Amino acid sequence: MRISQEIFPRPVVLVVTVDGKGKENIMPASFVMPVSFSPKYVAIAVAPERHTFSNLKEVGEFTVNVATLEMLEQVRVCGSHSGRDVDKFSMTKLTKTPSKKIRPSGIAESPITLECVVVYMNLFGDHYLVVGKVVEEHVRKTTFSPLLHYTGDSYMEARAIKS
Amino acid sequence: MRISQEIFPRPVVLVVTVDGKGKENIMPASFVMPVSFSPKYVAIAVAPERHTFSNLKEVGEFTVNVATLEMLEQVRVCGSHSGRDVDKFSMTKLTKTPSKKIRPSGIAESPITLECVVVYMNLFGDHYLVVGKVVEEHVRKTTFSPLLHYTGDSYMEARAIKS
Repeated sequence: MRISQEIFPRPVVLVVTVDGKGKENIMPASFVMPVSFSPKYVAIAVAPERHTFSNLKEVGEFTVNVATLEMLEQVRVCGSHSGRDVDKFSMTKLTKTPSKKIRPSGIAESPITLECVVVYMNLFGDHYLVVGKVVEEHVRKTTFSPLLHYTGDSYMEARAIKS
Repeated sequence: MRISQEIFPRPVVLVVTVDGKGKENIMPASFVMPVSFSPKYVAIAVAPERHTFSNLKEVGEFTVNVATLEMLEQVRVCGSHSGRDVDKFSMTKLTKTPSKKIRPSGIAESPITLECVVVYMNLFGDHYLVVGKVVEEHVRKTTFSPLLHYTGDSYMEARAIKS
């Protein structure tokens, strides 16, 4: 059984990174979690063959952009192409929005964008664990329906439990 | 806005640890994510004031037990008491099941138990990030309804998106 079928579903975020020349990339990630409330830290896992990993080695900054149900198709597009070959902002028509403190852009369609600086990156098995300190945040909506990932191309949605 | 209201909902797991004398504790966690598929690694975040953190410093092993919707009340009980004061296995009537390769028990009511050895532990902000290598796993059910956490005492459930 894959670990993604054991610990699920997980919130989907779009991770924006930039190479040394300023070219941006978007990668969907659901291996993501909050680490600390105050100051805020977040962790993501990135496979070393990903273009996002090359970018993070060059420029240790990224934005975490929370994905909503409405963004499912754009998430799928981002996940099925490599940033080495295509420009995912133009493919998806997602809207770049400038960050305040780091180079990678945010995504205007996301309700939440966290600007993060890499403070730790280490390989465990087949992924690098990357910890980012949140240096700025943009909250565009406080109420939204998060997109959740199960495994492969299966996505889920959440609803409140009445208790 | 709390980071738990930004990156949500997150799957809930029950983390079982043990002190040097063999006394066990159960802590619910939703700051959790898979890190690697093969070999499997998992990450959790633990606040340093938690009894679980003391246990992990003494015995660097833990089990990750996936929580289902049916386990909501037990999760709440585990989250509202400290293992310094009470025995959470007897309070919740959850069933201990022996691990094969580590000292902390698994929980028989969980569909999935991952036996983990701590390979990294470091403080970021107000939580320790703990990475465990999965050394054994127990799959009791492959189909189940995972319990998800929003923030505070709010929990959620998941359903598939038809596409």
